[in-house]
Amino acid sequence: MYTAALDIGGTKTIAAVIDEKGQICEKQTFPTSVADSYSHLDKCVLALQDVFSRIGISTSSIPGIGVSLPGIVNSAEGVLLYAPYAKWENVPIAAYLSEKLNIEKVFCENDVNACAIGEQMFGLGKKYTDFVWMTVSTGVGGAVVVDSKLVKGTHGIAGEIGHLKVEYTSPARCPCGQYGCMEAHASGTATARVIQQKIKADPAFADAFSAASVKPDGAGCDKLARAGNKDALQILEQIGMYLGRGISYCVNILNTQAVIIGGGASASLDLMLPGIRSAVKENVFEKMQSFEVIRTPLGYEAALLGAATLTMQA
Amino acid sequence: MYTAALDIGGTKTIAAVIDEKGQICEKQTFPTSVADSYSHLDKCVLALQDVFSRIGISTSSIPGIGVSLPGIVNSAEGVLLYAPYAKWENVPIAAYLSEKLNIEKVFCENDVNACAIGEQMFGLGKKYTDFVWMTVSTGVGGAVVVDSKLVKGTHGIAGEIGHLKVEYTSPARCPCGQYGCMEAHASGTATARVIQQKIKADPAFADAFSAASVKPDGAGCDKLARAGNKDALQILEQIGMYLGRGISYCVNILNTQAVIIGGGASASLDLMLPGIRSAVKENVFEKMQSFEVIRTPLGYEAALLGAATLTMQA
Repeated sequence: MYTAALDIGGTKTIAAVIDEKGQICEKQTFPTSVADSYSHLDKCVLALQDVFSRIGISTSSIPGIGVSLPGIVNSAEGVLLYAPYAKWENVPIAAYLSEKLNIEKVFCENDVNACAIGEQMFGLGKKYTDFVWMTVSTGVGGAVVVDSKLVKGTHGIAGEIGHLKVEYTSPARCPCGQYGCMEAHASGTATARVIQQKIKADPAFADAFSAASVKPDGAGCDKLARAGNKDALQILEQIGMYLGRGISYCVNILNTQAVIIGGGASASLDLMLPGIRSAVKENVFEKMQSFEVIRTPLGYEAALLGAATLTMQA
Repeated sequence: MYTAALDIGGTKTIAAVIDEKGQICEKQTFPTSVADSYSHLDKCVLALQDVFSRIGISTSSIPGIGVSLPGIVNSAEGVLLYAPYAKWENVPIAAYLSEKLNIEKVFCENDVNACAIGEQMFGLGKKYTDFVWMTVSTGVGGAVVVDSKLVKGTHGIAGEIGHLKVEYTSPARCPCGQYGCMEAHASGTATARVIQQKIKADPAFADAFSAASVKPDGAGCDKLARAGNKDALQILEQIGMYLGRGISYCVNILNTQAVIIGGGASASLDLMLPGIRSAVKENVFEKMQSFEVIRTPLGYEAALLGAATLTMQA
């Protein structure tokens, strides 16, 4: 069985045909043109038609199309209510794609929820009935699975764990307008800010990045830390400590089995783990500390696989 | 239809016969004798037999007995694993009562979970599919309901919201051994500690309690605040602020509809609300702020009614 999925991300979009085992049979990756949502959807239609023809299928032979979207999604109606980066508002994604591709079923989901759904079907989620998914990237997003079911909440936006407050003493401003959020202290953006603060206090730290030919960002910090730079390692451990605080709230409330981490910054999970573990030891109720913190095996494709899953569960 | 319920609390126990509308038809209240769990269970048996005979029923005419217990409960097995105040450990409550009362079905649940279950059946929970229950008393306990179902978690102990960290700058020690827990900053015990700190700094505050003939505890602070004492009001607002921080984590993670507050300190909810609201405004993700914070209408009997509910749902 084949199915189709779209992962419309803030910067790039993937259109793919996926089989029932979660194998990506054919895909096309292209930049997300944020200027106009409908013209970008037209590009998505062309990309899907292209991958369909390369595989030799048509929309009549697939159960539907699953779409992962970056922002607040009304999944029952298939509408993207708001995408912060692209500034798209109230885009009827399902209705539009359904008409253009002549297919009845188009399922939409927020990207982080899609990751958790993909993880359930094709990743570590097969092992766990209760887990929290965290995307640690430019921002920090989350999704909660309880008894093998995604928790949606009153307005369908449960899992805003990026806005859990992890710092009250010297809280940094978050893009959401509040202060001290996990996103403001443990995201890729936060890492870059902390690096700049460190450079201001100790200009030699800037030289370390130049010498290693890496940018002063999360990935650069990861590289420096692995090469033995203590300051870089300390920064990643501090990021881990903040992640650990946010994780502690999730675990104390949900007594969850696992926290599964995806997103670009998850590449540094091993370096952040000492910070996470120390925060967990201090902040998670003792009898709940035996949960796992693991990196997703699905990599960048978690959301795409989750979008495909939407068509299989319906 | 009649059913039977036991609420074994840290200090007192209630044995009751309850009808299907949640009316308590007959009850007997007596002190919990913590010295020996089995001799206390024998007293529970006598108390139940007494209320049965007063109503004129026997165990053959009720669906079962529901038991609310103060501590960690394995509800599948009906075993009280650990009760912190009484120091009872591994007591096979269901098996013991079942034999002594000659009734097959005895259902056990942790007291805070029982409150949430009682609230679902007979209180505000009928209005909400998603809510968080908080008991604010000597300690702070919690229970989480998602999609009308109690969240149990990996070890069956989800809802440890009393141990969410709400203070990192000058954290107080919690009975759990950690620092900065909501229980250490927003419980009745915490209120009494803060009053003592205030008295140390300003001995005239002690006089205010004496003049009003109230104890320097949560209830006394409530009375002083209602009589216009600004220091007392400020203390309750600060307790509210800490409750608000803990509530904010629950809401950001669960996008819940309501937080329902029970326990002795809930009598001061109106005075704590300004503190709760200000913390919610600062810490809950903006699009999730339209949830309610309300006092349970079930009062002290929430756990007892929850215990009764266990026998009706089976």
